[in-house]
Amino acid sequence: MKISEKTLAYLKSITAQSITQAKSGHLGASLGMSSFMLALFKNHYNFDVSDTDFLNRDRLVFSAGHACPVYYTLLNFFGFDVSLQDLKEMRVFGSKLQGHPEYKVTDGVEATTGALGQGVATAVGMAIAQEMLAERFNSVGFPIINNFTYCVVGDGCLMEGVAQEACSLAGNLNLNKLILLYDSNDVTIEGSLALANKENVSKKFKAMGWNVIKVKNGNSFSACSRAIAKAKKSTRPTIIIFKTTIGIGTAKEGTSAVHNAVLSEEELKIFNKNLGVSERFFVPNDVRDWCMATARKGKLEHEKWNQQLAIYANSNPELYRQLTVYFDRKKIDFDRLVRNSYKWENLSGRDLNKIILNEIAEKYLQIVGGTADVVSSTKTLIENGGYFSFANRRGRNIHFGVREHAMAGICNGIALYEDFIPFCSTLLAFSNYMTPAIRMSAMMKLNVLYLFTHDSVQIGQDGVTHQPIEQLAQLRSIPGLNVFRPCDANELLASYQYAITNQGPEAIILSKNQMETVDGKFKDTFMGGYILKAAKKEPKVTLIASGSEVALAVKVCQELSKKIDCAVVSMPSPTLFDKQSALYKAKVLGKGLKVAIEASNDNIWYKFVGEDGIFVGVNDYQGSGDGQQVYKAAGFDVKGIVRMITKKLGK
Amino acid sequence: MKISEKTLAYLKSITAQSITQAKSGHLGASLGMSSFMLALFKNHYNFDVSDTDFLNRDRLVFSAGHACPVYYTLLNFFGFDVSLQDLKEMRVFGSKLQGHPEYKVTDGVEATTGALGQGVATAVGMAIAQEMLAERFNSVGFPIINNFTYCVVGDGCLMEGVAQEACSLAGNLNLNKLILLYDSNDVTIEGSLALANKENVSKKFKAMGWNVIKVKNGNSFSACSRAIAKAKKSTRPTIIIFKTTIGIGTAKEGTSAVHNAVLSEEELKIFNKNLGVSERFFVPNDVRDWCMATARKGKLEHEKWNQQLAIYANSNPELYRQLTVYFDRKKIDFDRLVRNSYKWENLSGRDLNKIILNEIAEKYLQIVGGTADVVSSTKTLIENGGYFSFANRRGRNIHFGVREHAMAGICNGIALYEDFIPFCSTLLAFSNYMTPAIRMSAMMKLNVLYLFTHDSVQIGQDGVTHQPIEQLAQLRSIPGLNVFRPCDANELLASYQYAITNQGPEAIILSKNQMETVDGKFKDTFMGGYILKAAKKEPKVTLIASGSEVALAVKVCQELSKKIDCAVVSMPSPTLFDKQSALYKAKVLGKGLKVAIEASNDNIWYKFVGEDGIFVGVNDYQGSGDGQQVYKAAGFDVKGIVRMITKKLGK
Repeated sequence: MKISEKTLAYLKSITAQSITQAKSGHLGASLGMSSFMLALFKNHYNFDVSDTDFLNRDRLVFSAGHACPVYYTLLNFFGFDVSLQDLKEMRVFGSKLQGHPEYKVTDGVEATTGALGQGVATAVGMAIAQEMLAERFNSVGFPIINNFTYCVVGDGCLMEGVAQEACSLAGNLNLNKLILLYDSNDVTIEGSLALANKENVSKKFKAMGWNVIKVKNGNSFSACSRAIAKAKKSTRPTIIIFKTTIGIGTAKEGTSAVHNAVLSEEELKIFNKNLGVSERFFVPNDVRDWCMATARKGKLEHEKWNQQLAIYANSNPELYRQLTVYFDRKKIDFDRLVRNSYKWENLSGRDLNKIILNEIAEKYLQIVGGTADVVSSTKTLIENGGYFSFANRRGRNIHFGVREHAMAGICNGIALYEDFIPFCSTLLAFSNYMTPAIRMSAMMKLNVLYLFTHDSVQIGQDGVTHQPIEQLAQLRSIPGLNVFRPCDANELLASYQYAITNQGPEAIILSKNQMETVDGKFKDTFMGGYILKAAKKEPKVTLIASGSEVALAVKVCQELSKKIDCAVVSMPSPTLFDKQSALYKAKVLGKGLKVAIEASNDNIWYKFVGEDGIFVGVNDYQGSGDGQQVYKAAGFDVKGIVRMITKKLGK
Repeated sequence: MKISEKTLAYLKSITAQSITQAKSGHLGASLGMSSFMLALFKNHYNFDVSDTDFLNRDRLVFSAGHACPVYYTLLNFFGFDVSLQDLKEMRVFGSKLQGHPEYKVTDGVEATTGALGQGVATAVGMAIAQEMLAERFNSVGFPIINNFTYCVVGDGCLMEGVAQEACSLAGNLNLNKLILLYDSNDVTIEGSLALANKENVSKKFKAMGWNVIKVKNGNSFSACSRAIAKAKKSTRPTIIIFKTTIGIGTAKEGTSAVHNAVLSEEELKIFNKNLGVSERFFVPNDVRDWCMATARKGKLEHEKWNQQLAIYANSNPELYRQLTVYFDRKKIDFDRLVRNSYKWENLSGRDLNKIILNEIAEKYLQIVGGTADVVSSTKTLIENGGYFSFANRRGRNIHFGVREHAMAGICNGIALYEDFIPFCSTLLAFSNYMTPAIRMSAMMKLNVLYLFTHDSVQIGQDGVTHQPIEQLAQLRSIPGLNVFRPCDANELLASYQYAITNQGPEAIILSKNQMETVDGKFKDTFMGGYILKAAKKEPKVTLIASGSEVALAVKVCQELSKKIDCAVVSMPSPTLFDKQSALYKAKVLGKGLKVAIEASNDNIWYKFVGEDGIFVGVNDYQGSGDGQQVYKAAGFDVKGIVRMITKKLGK
């Protein structure tokens, strides 16, 4: 038996063993893709297990995350920090081998996957980031950044809209170092793939500008390896269609029944016997040696790369210096900006953001990003940044097209590639197209910046489909996503500082309309909420608001003050405020009637106003019309709010 | 000048006038698509303005909603209830002509659109519903249900993942009465389309099994009309690619600057002069007559169809009888089901749902639906319903494929086609792929039933990507979506009754795991929340829970009762409960400490527990592992909760 075949047999066997041990998992695809996965690891994938984070390593996104058992077994075979004991404990509470692959939890895993389709967008983002960096830092004779991005997909991933959007853009951008490894087994959970999908994937990808390679026998190690070698030479992004057999070697191979099957002890015995494997969780020395030879080669390649980098540093000292500081989160002089912020008074949130984004992007070159074809509305453009394209790999702005979901997923990939800080932008109403990808940013704690404009029903004329109502609540409900809705330049500056100095994604919510100056406080913004206008004594009423509604709250307070002592709290981030000490919160909120004002329907405000308080929000779709008129009709009106409060107080 | 050309000139002119009058709107596409839109209305679109709801009318989904000014003008020209005065008041607050088309607001508008891509999925749903009904009721010589579904799309719609998913499925299902009218002008907001998209749309759609027709001169009325005629004869779904000129006739034609341009008075004068139009908001008699001739023809066609139906009724009495009652929401004997519900004790939510869905689907034939390739997980199958396909148009189950977003959008289309009640299903964690389409169900008040299983982190082994945390909060934040999380068969039955007897979408959240019997109350469920276990006297503690957590709350109460008098409130729908009278709410919630228990992070509970209460929820991603272990570690544990409560009470 050839060593490749023997290794493949042990790979399949141990993979099946780990699933039987865990009593759950997805056996079908795990076995089906074992040949091409082994070919990738053995002959192509460039990694160094002694330094799994080095810059020019190949990236591998395992988008078909449910098939991770084979991935985990390979990580063990090739020397990553995954032991046979770990494989025995797959899916056990606290194990480093989770039910689907998780970034930062398992050594070697480059991205969390499991929500289908997301990984494809992530891989496209990594390939974009690689091109951006390569163009900026490679020099003649020194292709120091030239890694490949591999992405493993199944039928499920490719049916997802987010994947289709991402692939369409990848074709447009000609990302030729991106290689999709498509486990094409013609079977899904509900049966034959043809029940749901009969499209010609090859023709479809060609229509999107891709190189397509077909491997009829995707169960053959050598055929798979040859195909990958070919893909690496392509001048376009490549999809390799491996025709594989789901659950190969089991009694149910080729059927949907094997998708998430678990072999019984009896079935496992027969399966192992057919493979010529008699041991459990055991890797023979020749198999181990054969794999570790590749691991050693990877280490050597990395060392060679280090040497090349040293020579590059000598011959390109300025470029090298730039490279070393490129990802530095060096201090920006926020205080200077705050001192100048008076210049930006009475602008709209999006206009303010345009200025501040550009101020910051000038210092932080790793900020790149774009919009889903609404740059004239969101105004989120790095002004001297140019547009990223096949012709201009140096561009810092990206035309994402009308592809909100992929845009967010791609930003995850960019953020995963070293220390980029990608931003993406659209109208707040359309943020719901992106929440599955935003959730991934939050899970992986990635510094993705979401810039959502047109922050309330105040946008008016475009009508219900364009009016955000539930979106703020939806975003704030995502664990790990910081959401800021600043009321002015000072709070916006603080939001940026928070995004840059903390690990994790952030959404900044910006108004379309002009915001009246209210003198928000830069430093207090980091508390999530603070007293903007104090009462004379102990306030009878505390008005709490965010964003555009802060100016409204100030006016309500002015009106109320004639009779009732009141305070105004600006709360750009109620979730952050909620994390402060009980003492601080009590001090800010006061003991009187609490009234929250925000053009959203986020119940988080009830946490602060209590049973007796008032939340002036929006809980239904509004008609289209003049923005101010719509806003007022929805209840955002000084007189109406004052009346409500005085009535409540019985005055 | 030919009358078609004259009409086209007035169509363009009045469209531009309405935008100038409104001071906002999207002039570019409105003008660009005027030729093919006129060709559609004049020669193909089958409608009757005197009865715009008749069963066999053609359906038109205006997916590129921003271009609605030309649509509105056509509705006026062809006799719908849209006056010239209405056109003058487009986008004015309270106007019947909203910023984007709205269902039930504007006569003739078949679906609300404006969130790009949604309309394509909606149209696919309508085409599916048409085929379902045709197969069931057409008989030889009586093709009584044979309408076409037209869908107008731009470059933006087609870039959206939801549209790509829907088109892929439409090809697979061979929906040949579906015709996409693609306004291909090669320009988007950010500039040339090629900046974001260079794919070969023709080849891509062919790869998905579509018929493709190209119209080089999409500005020619006759060429457009011929193409539509051809499409109607296709044996596959058709996309007609009309090469048009954005903003045709304006100074900025063919550029992105005209996308949402508004002509100034001066520009409008020149524009009108070039078109040979001198009046404002005026339709010459010959133009009006030419259009109204078509309207009269439509009325005649409808009368002919009525006659045909009468003959059909005579020769197919049984089929006709079935047709007349097909959409009847006739009473189902829910009381009988409730009496039998003891048989279904101790099942999981999804298993319970399987039984009840089938009980109900047996009576309500208009219930059809499916899953995004997870039927073995969600168990939402109509057991004797068969699968809908090209070969079996009678099937009631649909293989949606791994296309969650399109699945929801398609259900909107099915619900819009007469009185179908479509359901769709996936794991709760993946509901966020669908929220943009769910929002559309809510806006249009459609009876779409969303069945989400695997309702909490209790699912365990599949790990973070599969664990819902924020999803309940996200769904409940959508205005107009009823969300129920039933604790047993009685509450589930009530959830179904609520869905069927109310207008609007509903999401039912179902557990993967077995739920212990708690004797939920059928009738009280309609209050959203009710006292399940009363305290002996006035309770010191009220435990409030939904779904799986109700049984946990009962156990906590049992434990607490040894020392403290407590009550348990089952609250399957906190949003519905919130709509009840203050008196009822106060009675249910009691005066003591309130503790909400739900494995979600929905802040809505703070609305009921108040500042001093406790919410036992989940606010971060959990590790993978045994379901019970994960659940317990997240805090869902009798002892832990009892300890928390006694500590709070200082006992």
